[in-house]
Amino acid sequence: MADKKKLVAEITSMDEDFTQWYTDVCIKADLIAYSHIKGFMVIKPYGYAIWENMQKLLDERFKETGVQNVYMPLLIPESLLRKEGELVNGFAPEVAWVTAGGTEPLTERLAIRPTSETVFSDFYKDDVHSYRDLPRLYNQWCSVVRWEKETRPFLRSREFLWQEGHTIHASKEEAEARTQQMLNIYADFLANDMAIPTIKGQKTEKEKFAGAEATYTVEALMHDGRALQSGTSHFFGQKFAKAYDITYTDKDNQLKYVWQTSWGATTRMIGAMIMVHGDNRGLVIPPKIAPIQVDIIPIQQRKEGVLDKAYEIRDMLKGFRVKVDDTDKSPGFKFSEQEMRGIPLRIEIGPRDIENGTCVIVRRDNFEKKEIRISDAAAAVGELLKTVQSDMLKKAKAHLEEMTYAAATPEEFRARFDNDKGDGFVKAMWCGDRACEDKIKEMYGVTSRCIPFEQEHIAGTCVCCGKPAKKMVLWAKAY
Amino acid sequence: MADKKKLVAEITSMDEDFTQWYTDVCIKADLIAYSHIKGFMVIKPYGYAIWENMQKLLDERFKETGVQNVYMPLLIPESLLRKEGELVNGFAPEVAWVTAGGTEPLTERLAIRPTSETVFSDFYKDDVHSYRDLPRLYNQWCSVVRWEKETRPFLRSREFLWQEGHTIHASKEEAEARTQQMLNIYADFLANDMAIPTIKGQKTEKEKFAGAEATYTVEALMHDGRALQSGTSHFFGQKFAKAYDITYTDKDNQLKYVWQTSWGATTRMIGAMIMVHGDNRGLVIPPKIAPIQVDIIPIQQRKEGVLDKAYEIRDMLKGFRVKVDDTDKSPGFKFSEQEMRGIPLRIEIGPRDIENGTCVIVRRDNFEKKEIRISDAAAAVGELLKTVQSDMLKKAKAHLEEMTYAAATPEEFRARFDNDKGDGFVKAMWCGDRACEDKIKEMYGVTSRCIPFEQEHIAGTCVCCGKPAKKMVLWAKAY
Repeated sequence: MADKKKLVAEITSMDEDFTQWYTDVCIKADLIAYSHIKGFMVIKPYGYAIWENMQKLLDERFKETGVQNVYMPLLIPESLLRKEGELVNGFAPEVAWVTAGGTEPLTERLAIRPTSETVFSDFYKDDVHSYRDLPRLYNQWCSVVRWEKETRPFLRSREFLWQEGHTIHASKEEAEARTQQMLNIYADFLANDMAIPTIKGQKTEKEKFAGAEATYTVEALMHDGRALQSGTSHFFGQKFAKAYDITYTDKDNQLKYVWQTSWGATTRMIGAMIMVHGDNRGLVIPPKIAPIQVDIIPIQQRKEGVLDKAYEIRDMLKGFRVKVDDTDKSPGFKFSEQEMRGIPLRIEIGPRDIENGTCVIVRRDNFEKKEIRISDAAAAVGELLKTVQSDMLKKAKAHLEEMTYAAATPEEFRARFDNDKGDGFVKAMWCGDRACEDKIKEMYGVTSRCIPFEQEHIAGTCVCCGKPAKKMVLWAKAY
Repeated sequence: MADKKKLVAEITSMDEDFTQWYTDVCIKADLIAYSHIKGFMVIKPYGYAIWENMQKLLDERFKETGVQNVYMPLLIPESLLRKEGELVNGFAPEVAWVTAGGTEPLTERLAIRPTSETVFSDFYKDDVHSYRDLPRLYNQWCSVVRWEKETRPFLRSREFLWQEGHTIHASKEEAEARTQQMLNIYADFLANDMAIPTIKGQKTEKEKFAGAEATYTVEALMHDGRALQSGTSHFFGQKFAKAYDITYTDKDNQLKYVWQTSWGATTRMIGAMIMVHGDNRGLVIPPKIAPIQVDIIPIQQRKEGVLDKAYEIRDMLKGFRVKVDDTDKSPGFKFSEQEMRGIPLRIEIGPRDIENGTCVIVRRDNFEKKEIRISDAAAAVGELLKTVQSDMLKKAKAHLEEMTYAAATPEEFRARFDNDKGDGFVKAMWCGDRACEDKIKEMYGVTSRCIPFEQEHIAGTCVCCGKPAKKMVLWAKAY
């Protein structure tokens, strides 16, 4: 077991240094590599396979609701970007600018898309004429560039992968319903496929998306008690419609502006998966999005019949994503690699097992071991993958609940955040003033994550200024 | 039928003006829209759905051979791009340059990837250490930017979608075999899924990819007799390995350079599909990549039971991609729209058909009509889709053969190209000198498409200079 210890020893303990643990896992589990281009990362096959599974599951959900995929230009002329002032003010400091094409300077700078509201609006303007053309429910899977100063794998990088949905509607109600519908899809996907529970709510004016009338969010809680915004859905009202002149002729023959939404989720969700489920042995991937669900590891694989039996078990597991680790590494090394990579189930099969007609299955999430009959492998694996998936969600839910606190008074609020440990979600009342939000951020480094849809009455007064409270807000330190 | 005529009349006849016909089809069949960003297009849902089907079928083939998907940075520092001189010389005139990030100018210009040999090489350099790490068989699906002067939908645009595979190997033989393997995958995909026959061969020195030792290609012939390069596979030898220092320790403990390949196919293939199969009524899409395979069009749909029966037939066709056109347009208009969009099969169902328990199926490729029992619909559709798929390939093969000529003498060669009509593939012998290749291009505007793998002895002397011939070359005017 020397090998195993060595590999695990290579990652920092999450209890000692969570930030370093996170980076170690990203690298050692083979998800990414740093590129030589500052702030840009390489998503390696194992990381990309997780993203492909996520894409597939999300894309199916989108399409079930009538969403269609398209592809819009990567580059946006500066004048087009500037038509809607708030959006460009929000993004201008972090846009990458193209100023030359080939050997010639351009007459107008082009931005690499930081987000595509402007391009979609410019397209919809000519694409839509009549109420019959509505709604338009378009989405694209692509990369975007934002010139961040500090970068971290998946969480913040100068380029990241995402989907951005942009819809237009004939009525405000329909657009608002779509905003909620997509938020619910994110919450459902995160809970049921990624085993990540979230709290749904609305962003404050301060935290909402540049140019949006309302931003809705699903907020997840990481193992270290910090929040991660995991998907957002925006209601734009008619702001872009008016800036970009997107009109249609309604049934009553009147020219009207459309109502608009956008919604996006990114490779950040992989960061959430790492930080919600991971442990000191590495990644723990929920079965539904795991590139490999079962790692079959032969013991004494040079003994006759062992490898054959391993392949035989693999062949019994058709329909699951299975790998036989037949490399010449030691079993201990293979175990620790399987654990580092977060493969949900490991099957150990050696000469003695073969004699008994059994094998051993070990769960990655809680290390539970079970001896089963080889002939039952398919049923046992199917059952266990379901159990692991639902147990992971249960565990994450319990963690979220444990680390969600209510603070009724300024003192309780301070006690919660004014220390090095003890982070988590804190529910507290708010008067609705931006000044209090700013002050809380300044004092404790925490931001309002959202105004949860599920409101509670924690107290009658604002946790900051003591004036009458309007809403309960969820506060946290955030990634 | 007035409606129908109107819609069809909106596209130019392909016999009058093939170029205009092509553009008309791209727009009227709803594949693309021009964006307001010069040289960039919007791929609309119907066009993108075709691309998604193509991606899926190609990606499956790649993965069967062990290829893994990754994602590499969009931007490439100028110094990194310049390490391999030939590549940058080939692409420098058409690179888009980023010179500012946010409000600050960059210290080094960054190119938007025109292709990613350099980035993959830079990554592999650190990723590979031992012979155990080889081969690496990575691919990415992404967009690239090339600052073209003249642009046309799918065929040439400043941004296009593609896949680029980049592999490294321990031996020359293995790398060469991979180059061929991927070329065969393109040929197989084009023939069997896109119903496009191609001629496989090697590019001449003049036409090969910048930086490659050898470029292989699959060349298709469009309806108008022009060639379209539809997929390429490159063998790099150790050129990039030496420029970017990609070495590994071999079994014999010696440090060695890797052998490298790359291969790519793009949204251009959609252009090929349009120009190989389309006709004066619009697109004709091969069933395997058609977003909708069957369009059920109710006749007199307001009569009781007609729409219900249409939905009933749709429900019988589970497993196929089926749509019921229940809009309030006239049947004639719907027919012409289904034809414009190239949906392989149309089912017509009206009150009289329902009485008889029958419906009418019409093939898009040859307009053959057939009355079938409704109860046989699933079997008939399955059968017909197969037949349409294989008949489309047969027809395209016949066209390719008809329009492939042999020219033994300079006179025959001139007669073939020195006129306004009569284009096509011309097989002719070549001495191997660049001068002759240049001269032929200058005289007739044709390029050497490839040196076909299947060589024939057309004559003993070069069709240009009359010196002894070395190879048979395939010549054509090309897109």
